[in-house]
Amino acid sequence: MSNGDIFLGELIGTAILILFGAGVCAAVTLNHSKAKASGWTVIAFGWGFGVLAGAYTAAPLSGGQLNPAVTIGIAVDTGKWDKVWVYLLGQMVGAMLGAVLAYLVYLAQFQANVRTSGTTKGTADEPTPTLGIFSTIPEIRNPVANLITEIIATIGLVLPILAFGLTKGLGESGTLVLIVSLLVVGIGLSLGGPTGYAINPARDLGPRIVHSFLPIPNKGTSDWSYAWIPVVGPLIGGALSGLIYNAAF
Amino acid sequence: MSNGDIFLGELIGTAILILFGAGVCAAVTLNHSKAKASGWTVIAFGWGFGVLAGAYTAAPLSGGQLNPAVTIGIAVDTGKWDKVWVYLLGQMVGAMLGAVLAYLVYLAQFQANVRTSGTTKGTADEPTPTLGIFSTIPEIRNPVANLITEIIATIGLVLPILAFGLTKGLGESGTLVLIVSLLVVGIGLSLGGPTGYAINPARDLGPRIVHSFLPIPNKGTSDWSYAWIPVVGPLIGGALSGLIYNAAF
Amino acid sequence: MSNGDIFLGELIGTAILILFGAGVCAAVTLNHSKAKASGWTVIAFGWGFGVLAGAYTAAPLSGGQLNPAVTIGIAVDTGKWDKVWVYLLGQMVGAMLGAVLAYLVYLAQFQANVRTSGTTKGTADEPTPTLGIFSTIPEIRNPVANLITEIIATIGLVLPILAFGLTKGLGESGTLVLIVSLLVVGIGLSLGGPTGYAINPARDLGPRIVHSFLPIPNKGTSDWSYAWIPVVGPLIGGALSGLIYNAAF
Amino acid sequence: MSNGDIFLGELIGTAILILFGAGVCAAVTLNHSKAKASGWTVIAFGWGFGVLAGAYTAAPLSGGQLNPAVTIGIAVDTGKWDKVWVYLLGQMVGAMLGAVLAYLVYLAQFQANVRTSGTTKGTADEPTPTLGIFSTIPEIRNPVANLITEIIATIGLVLPILAFGLTKGLGESGTLVLIVSLLVVGIGLSLGGPTGYAINPARDLGPRIVHSFLPIPNKGTSDWSYAWIPVVGPLIGGALSGLIYNAAF
Repeated sequence: MSNGDIFLGELIGTAILILFGAGVCAAVTLNHSKAKASGWTVIAFGWGFGVLAGAYTAAPLSGGQLNPAVTIGIAVDTGKWDKVWVYLLGQMVGAMLGAVLAYLVYLAQFQANVRTSGTTKGTADEPTPTLGIFSTIPEIRNPVANLITEIIATIGLVLPILAFGLTKGLGESGTLVLIVSLLVVGIGLSLGGPTGYAINPARDLGPRIVHSFLPIPNKGTSDWSYAWIPVVGPLIGGALSGLIYNAAF
Repeated sequence: MSNGDIFLGELIGTAILILFGAGVCAAVTLNHSKAKASGWTVIAFGWGFGVLAGAYTAAPLSGGQLNPAVTIGIAVDTGKWDKVWVYLLGQMVGAMLGAVLAYLVYLAQFQANVRTSGTTKGTADEPTPTLGIFSTIPEIRNPVANLITEIIATIGLVLPILAFGLTKGLGESGTLVLIVSLLVVGIGLSLGGPTGYAINPARDLGPRIVHSFLPIPNKGTSDWSYAWIPVVGPLIGGALSGLIYNAAF
Repeated sequence: MSNGDIFLGELIGTAILILFGAGVCAAVTLNHSKAKASGWTVIAFGWGFGVLAGAYTAAPLSGGQLNPAVTIGIAVDTGKWDKVWVYLLGQMVGAMLGAVLAYLVYLAQFQANVRTSGTTKGTADEPTPTLGIFSTIPEIRNPVANLITEIIATIGLVLPILAFGLTKGLGESGTLVLIVSLLVVGIGLSLGGPTGYAINPARDLGPRIVHSFLPIPNKGTSDWSYAWIPVVGPLIGGALSGLIYNAAF
Repeated sequence: MSNGDIFLGELIGTAILILFGAGVCAAVTLNHSKAKASGWTVIAFGWGFGVLAGAYTAAPLSGGQLNPAVTIGIAVDTGKWDKVWVYLLGQMVGAMLGAVLAYLVYLAQFQANVRTSGTTKGTADEPTPTLGIFSTIPEIRNPVANLITEIIATIGLVLPILAFGLTKGLGESGTLVLIVSLLVVGIGLSLGGPTGYAINPARDLGPRIVHSFLPIPNKGTSDWSYAWIPVVGPLIGGALSGLIYNAAF
């Protein structure tokens, strides 16, 4: 694969992933959304099927990694580091583009994020904090615990992905990405409770940058003091996955 | 494929799609339905599995496009336009037939859509507006924003569909339609909040025509002033997907 | 396939189907169940994955039809009627066995179906009507409308099943039953609202017979006056599916 | 497969299974979790996709049984007992490791399991009993009924798993584990209501041992008087599945 194809594939794929992922967070968060307050199942399946959409689209160009933690895990396992920067660059640009697209899909909802006298379905029309649509926020702010959560949750993503390649037939039948997307649904359901499962540095940092620039009424803080955890935790988890995989398989 | 097979396949497939899709909207909307108010997950999976049912059924006859936005996207990509009108005709007739079938499945519920003194499960027996069962209604009425939503959401559908064909094995293993149907679930979960995700001109226009003629008590308006957006938006999104695909892949 | 294998396969497969299906209805209906009142998604996926469990298990012995409407639809299409009675016999005995197994799984819950002074999770401890665990009950009792619902919903099941066989790869990759089970989830979500989607005469009649004999406290009526509709409707729907399939494909 | 590979595969796979399974129970149970009280669908899919993650990861090393009931069922069917102890040992150690990992993911939530004056999303901040995160608790304590529930539910797991191997293509296409994981979702939805569906001795006993040692505030009892049922029931169910399979297929 050429550097151009890798960059383009990761950019398009990660943009689609974040379009769906930030989209589903907007869907359940914002007033005047049909999916307002529709629950954790919606969040987890929305992100998982975002992986399905993005990774199948990117696969022919770049393999569809869409996540620096996956890229680092593969690099640690294979020892090939020379193209890592191309993947990461595509992922970061794609994540920012995807966040802008999700913002545009919910443009009217974001613009209506002000106090109004009327009421909407199920909620009083108070403005909603918007950072959670773009990036993760821990329920309990505890750097050590939050970091542990992100490390283990990322191992729960990357170690299986590395091992999936060993199951005969998954690749040939084209269903490998489907399995990964359901894995991501599972991580959301099971391991997302404490921190909102970044498990992907680009997924968290890219949209956070976009959030800090977008002109959203009452958008609230971009919470930069927390931003290092969903970057460092997944990178550690990805690297550990590569080491465990190398040792065990 | 002969014109007859294409027309018949698209007709049957789109009829099944709308039977399931309008059906699930009736299921969660109407009084005296066991699925009344059962939430957004039900809507999104109902539409997605409607694609599964309709597209697998239509596939041997017409390939199972079931959506003018998909047909336009493929035509823009391939440059072959001569059979497009056959697909579109089958899709429109099928969508209208499907809406009638869904109406018949929920016949007793539609006939009971009147004020009654009793109560049903979870709701007072007030008549329910019925257009949302057939066609999409935006939460915030803003033509520019609604159009942007439908364009981007349709790109989120058609661009991946075009790219899915490049993943080796999906076609041979027969699971390509399954992946598309889960993609549609994902679009519903993530991008359906603002406008109810038409992403398919036939899906919206066909049932809207049927709604305007059906003798439903208290059926409410057919809202023709909005009807152009879920037609024009998806067509633009489909065409853009063809252009992006052609340029990037 | 020998008559013995067909009978045994349909018996075991239908027993598993009804174990899961009646099980999930018990799960959301009975007091002292962890899934009490957990909603329509649970019902629809429980029945769908019951098809997955039962049909994959039965497949090597009998092909895993598990439903007289499917068997009739295939017979109308192929013109082969000589083994139909073996399928139907296995399906009916299996459905009754499955209902007994589901009763045994929820034995303590059925025995506790009496008024108690305490309270359980989310509900006052009033006895619960139990027929809905075994057989279908329409929300609005209207024989013509109920019959139409069951006929169309069964066409929505059997016509796609007949057509699925034409998609290359689904059979070879072994995923055909998975697609059918997701189709059943879709029918539940979309078309189950009015009558509870029998779409299978054995699924309704077998457990209804079992319900009429089981010693359940406060079990309520077995509602025999309605029992013909979920038998006749699906049989008509299955036969119509065979005719449509023969004509269109 | 060498004893070392079997041990390591079962250990890693069961650890991942319990990480996801105990994780999802923590997610819906603990205060300050984003998935607090999100319902039975979340539980059932979380456990099912835990099987997907764990079994696909373990498959290349050990085949990914992850459950003594499955191992016993296969041994009864094949008559090969010499490696059973290696599987069981790996499963037990893995289950304990997985419980510790889930505890670490929700570390801040467990540490905050004390009475506080504030309120969290949807709940008053009362301490939550924690055993249900690790092991199963029956809704109605009735040893005979609970044992019957676990036996039948385990047959509903192991008999289909044994039969799945007969469906041509599932193994070759690599989707066999996917089918098993959806089967586990189905068992949770349908048969989990009375006892919380252990259906796996290691899944219940391993985490119960861990629970009895972990320093969790207000953790409550480890309920050792019930502990034999989710061990003995699944073992009986697994053995019966082997016998039924041998006789019928």
